[in-house]
Amino acid sequence: MSTPLTVEMHQLACRAKEAAVQLAGLSTTDKNLLLERMADALLQERETLQRENEKDLVNARAAGLSAAMIDRLLLSEERIAAMAAGLREVAALPDPVGEITGMWRRPNGIQVGRMRIPLGVIGIIFESRPNVTADAAGLCLKSGNAVILRGGSEAIHSNRAIGQLLSRQLTDMGLPAAALQVVETTDREAITALLQCEDQIDLIIPRGGEGLIRFVSEHSRIPVIKHYKGICHTFVDAAADFDMASRICLNAKVQRPGVCNAMETLLIHQDIAETFVPRIVREMHQHGVLLRGCPVCQSLSDRIEPASDADWDTEYLDLVLSLRVVENINEAINHIRRHGSLHTEVIVTNDYANAQHFVRAVNSSVIMVNASSRFSDGNQLGLGAEIGISTTKLHAFGPMGLEDLTTRKFIVFGDGQVRA
Amino acid sequence: MSTPLTVEMHQLACRAKEAAVQLAGLSTTDKNLLLERMADALLQERETLQRENEKDLVNARAAGLSAAMIDRLLLSEERIAAMAAGLREVAALPDPVGEITGMWRRPNGIQVGRMRIPLGVIGIIFESRPNVTADAAGLCLKSGNAVILRGGSEAIHSNRAIGQLLSRQLTDMGLPAAALQVVETTDREAITALLQCEDQIDLIIPRGGEGLIRFVSEHSRIPVIKHYKGICHTFVDAAADFDMASRICLNAKVQRPGVCNAMETLLIHQDIAETFVPRIVREMHQHGVLLRGCPVCQSLSDRIEPASDADWDTEYLDLVLSLRVVENINEAINHIRRHGSLHTEVIVTNDYANAQHFVRAVNSSVIMVNASSRFSDGNQLGLGAEIGISTTKLHAFGPMGLEDLTTRKFIVFGDGQVRA
Repeated sequence: MSTPLTVEMHQLACRAKEAAVQLAGLSTTDKNLLLERMADALLQERETLQRENEKDLVNARAAGLSAAMIDRLLLSEERIAAMAAGLREVAALPDPVGEITGMWRRPNGIQVGRMRIPLGVIGIIFESRPNVTADAAGLCLKSGNAVILRGGSEAIHSNRAIGQLLSRQLTDMGLPAAALQVVETTDREAITALLQCEDQIDLIIPRGGEGLIRFVSEHSRIPVIKHYKGICHTFVDAAADFDMASRICLNAKVQRPGVCNAMETLLIHQDIAETFVPRIVREMHQHGVLLRGCPVCQSLSDRIEPASDADWDTEYLDLVLSLRVVENINEAINHIRRHGSLHTEVIVTNDYANAQHFVRAVNSSVIMVNASSRFSDGNQLGLGAEIGISTTKLHAFGPMGLEDLTTRKFIVFGDGQVRA
Repeated sequence: MSTPLTVEMHQLACRAKEAAVQLAGLSTTDKNLLLERMADALLQERETLQRENEKDLVNARAAGLSAAMIDRLLLSEERIAAMAAGLREVAALPDPVGEITGMWRRPNGIQVGRMRIPLGVIGIIFESRPNVTADAAGLCLKSGNAVILRGGSEAIHSNRAIGQLLSRQLTDMGLPAAALQVVETTDREAITALLQCEDQIDLIIPRGGEGLIRFVSEHSRIPVIKHYKGICHTFVDAAADFDMASRICLNAKVQRPGVCNAMETLLIHQDIAETFVPRIVREMHQHGVLLRGCPVCQSLSDRIEPASDADWDTEYLDLVLSLRVVENINEAINHIRRHGSLHTEVIVTNDYANAQHFVRAVNSSVIMVNASSRFSDGNQLGLGAEIGISTTKLHAFGPMGLEDLTTRKFIVFGDGQVRA
């Protein structure tokens, strides 16, 4: 069933695949120069961008979008500068392409190794924030991939303007414009059409709310890297330092509650519950956190509302915290296995064996000992920049950096060997 | 739409997920002991296996299956011994689980690393050969994964018998039988039902013909690692040693023509065509190879039939070879890009720059210089054993070993750090 739109998306994907061949062979110097030029252009053409952005803002106000939504759309001078700075940071990162990650010799004398190469064509499907256009493009191009960007219809003027400006830097350097394409139609069918181009597009990364991500992964024939939500746990063990535990818990809950690496559930060892529960409840309360807890917790503080079964599976993204007292570390681990979302789990303890046990036994994508779950982020963990986060285990698990936009081919050097 | 069969498959997948937790925590010693016991049991209960296998053979003969098909079904004494030996080889391989692949320190003092963990539950969907039951189970269990095996209906008695025997070794060691489950129904709906269990099964590996693989990847909501076909090329450069080139080409074509790493197309530099084409045609002809070539090739030998456009995209899996004379290395690379299947490509050359250029510019999963494409195999490349081969780029690209049945989680060790 080919409609004009599916044909158009297929052609766009074919052009990207064609461009990807050239991108894969670009030198690190040229890729860095490209990103620097893109950063310069964003700053120089700020006023054009803001003029286009204003069209989106006018439409958003007319459509009665919420203040939070409108704020996400806004391309302020500061945000444009941040996009430019982001591109320069990516330019400064090491280039993963061409790295030989290992080389060994076989008994017959052939040398075998693995070399990093770009994935090829990456499709980014996102909502609202137009800065994703520049951020994602920078990471994809630096790793030698062609990129197709499909933002939300509410940011179409902004995305298009950013895309055109970045694309011009490609052609100015004699590179194919199709290495970076912004899908200009706001028709949702464009997404489903793109998701069928399995012979052209190598990876789809959806960024946005759970609804968008489910839609993309249900309709895609292309591999999708995704995470639905972050229900992050902190377990305060019997052997925890209370000051440290309280500092880590407060940071994980209140420093930025609306993000996926904020803590949603606090598990507390029963041996310290009598002392620690009232203390943390008081501190959380002072920071405006609403508390929902198990009956044992409730018996230790009158500021805790009863938690329903659904609470343990809820990503509040807000100043709300569920608390539960557990018998021991294994009950904590089992709770995490049952209710976690494979994102980030923290243990606070000074017990060596428990720290080791927790790290080994919990198979979420990020496991921490004595640190705030808020560090679960590509930048904070030292990946340089983050293209997304994966809570599915194939290809990448956890925060994803430049390296995760590559794959490895085998390379073999022989002297005429044949198989016996 | 839940039918009794979809419910049954869902329950089976849930049991596997439950078992996977225990599998992930097993020590290397216990996993190796398990595999050794499985190997012993295969040998000890050879007669039972052969009795069950005979039922499949009787049915196959009655159904009029081809001699080749019937041969694939056969569990000879030799093949049972090979299954047992295969399990012992996997037991002897290093355990990838728990390996810390890197560890670094961030400016704030947190230590960040990555640790290998099992994927969880792996579904293997295969055809004909019952030995896959033991081979795949060994690799999945050694890497700490639970495994669900669904073989072809024609081998159901053999697969069931092998599965029961292996499963008994699990329970004898106090391990959950659900760590290894053979799907006992031959209804094809069982496959589609399994492919919906995305919350329980982490990876699907189909092994068999292109039809099976397409069916699986079209119906799966679970990531699928696959390869459709192997159209492997050898490019004989102008600077090639003719003796070496001829040895490599003959080995790649005739040593075992029916497998995916055999050569299907030979590309020859025009500068040597006049000498090399008649020589290689004569040698191939002596080995019974049928030749199809471009007009230039045909002008150099009367043993070459004309190649049609379709020939360049055909995996013969037989003693047939297509030949084409190319102007230069870039024409060879472009031919491979257009007609290759991302499997294995070989250059034969003594020119350093061309060898480097070919290795960098061709992004198939295995690129070789001066060696036969027949080395493109997990064992030959030194991965120890092969669970499959991937010609899609996500997660694994090329032959897959034990390591590819794992993923990596981030581990973080702090001293109370919080995010500013």
